Amino acid sequence: MAVRADLNLSLDGVAATTDQTPENMFGEDWGRLVAPYTATRTFRERVMHEENGAGTTGIDDRYAQAYFEGVGAEIMGAGMFGLHAFPDDPDWRGWWGEEPPFGFPVLVLTHAPRPPIEFPNGTRFEFRTMSPDEALAEARHLAGDGDIRIGGGASVVRDFLRAGLVDRLHVAITPIVLGRGHHLWDDLHWLEDGYDVSSEVAESGVIHVTFRR
Amino acid sequence: MAVRADLNLSLDGVAATTDQTPENMFGEDWGRLVAPYTATRTFRERVMHEENGAGTTGIDDRYAQAYFEGVGAEIMGAGMFGLHAFPDDPDWRGWWGEEPPFGFPVLVLTHAPRPPIEFPNGTRFEFRTMSPDEALAEARHLAGDGDIRIGGGASVVRDFLRAGLVDRLHVAITPIVLGRGHHLWDDLHWLEDGYDVSSEVAESGVIHVTFRR
Repeated sequence: MAVRADLNLSLDGVAATTDQTPENMFGEDWGRLVAPYTATRTFRERVMHEENGAGTTGIDDRYAQAYFEGVGAEIMGAGMFGLHAFPDDPDWRGWWGEEPPFGFPVLVLTHAPRPPIEFPNGTRFEFRTMSPDEALAEARHLAGDGDIRIGGGASVVRDFLRAGLVDRLHVAITPIVLGRGHHLWDDLHWLEDGYDVSSEVAESGVIHVTFRR
Repeated sequence: MAVRADLNLSLDGVAATTDQTPENMFGEDWGRLVAPYTATRTFRERVMHEENGAGTTGIDDRYAQAYFEGVGAEIMGAGMFGLHAFPDDPDWRGWWGEEPPFGFPVLVLTHAPRPPIEFPNGTRFEFRTMSPDEALAEARHLAGDGDIRIGGGASVVRDFLRAGLVDRLHVAITPIVLGRGHHLWDDLHWLEDGYDVSSEVAESGVIHVTFRR
């Protein structure tokens, strides 16, 4: 029952971009940052529900497959679910569409809880106001024998890293310089202590760095 | 006659550390950051003048060898020479000892010029108050058919990058998080534009990223 996290980063450590506009709700920088991931076959099948065999099948896709393998429950921030987009709409069901790519319980950390949302594929979003420790205890209960994935955003992953709760951190570094946005590595001096760190370079140029303990 | 630069970075993009003390003039963080480079055979022979065959001979060493290959002149900041350490000592000859590992002219950018210093192995330090463009013009003249290396520190390399003057940037990323220090990537949004970027991982775990145009 490992606790795992994955993030996309730029070379300058930006994990959350800040150039969103009403016309481009995710932002141009975000699109450039996650392009190698959203190009994978796993993303296109599992998240976009395309069934045409499109998408890359190399090293990036191997990591994308692993995002969901063996996971029994996920913890994510309110922004990852989409709560900040339409905070006043009680019927808003999040970014993830009617077939969210989870199939297991997802705890959404928020200061404004709402009733759970359940989907036929086994995904159930539950909204909680909790510390990382409390959320992890509940997720362990929900996950059974499965792993727990900290799904992001960057500030949620950092909270769990700072609390020493993450067994495996994988960052996919896209070799671009964004120069603005929220940086993952702030306040994580000596993060590598107690971890083995290994890296490999994908065909796309993305550098996959994994911290394991 | 390419213009080249090499820097050691932490995962969080720190190129210049700030934990120097009177007891540890380079700082603990600096030692951790450059440990894979200072472990190479090339560094130990060329910079430390050890002749016992010690040092690593893998991918890190291949990059270390390339630092000096084909270079005809170097440009460095005052801090890299050592001017800030003993600013009031006119006889101070810098960090690099009596056999500096260059063997070619080195322009040291400083607001406090002093007479040149010449060594028997062909290294000649000249002190200049100049813009990046002006320094590059003089270095081209001094370098003959050789390349020009921007030797650092981070702020000098960044000045040349921002002015669009660097043909090849190599960063050796040590997989540690320093959390404090001067960051290379600040103000370099879209740096990758016009460059091919490639990466490889050394036996030591260092990630070598090269921007080429």
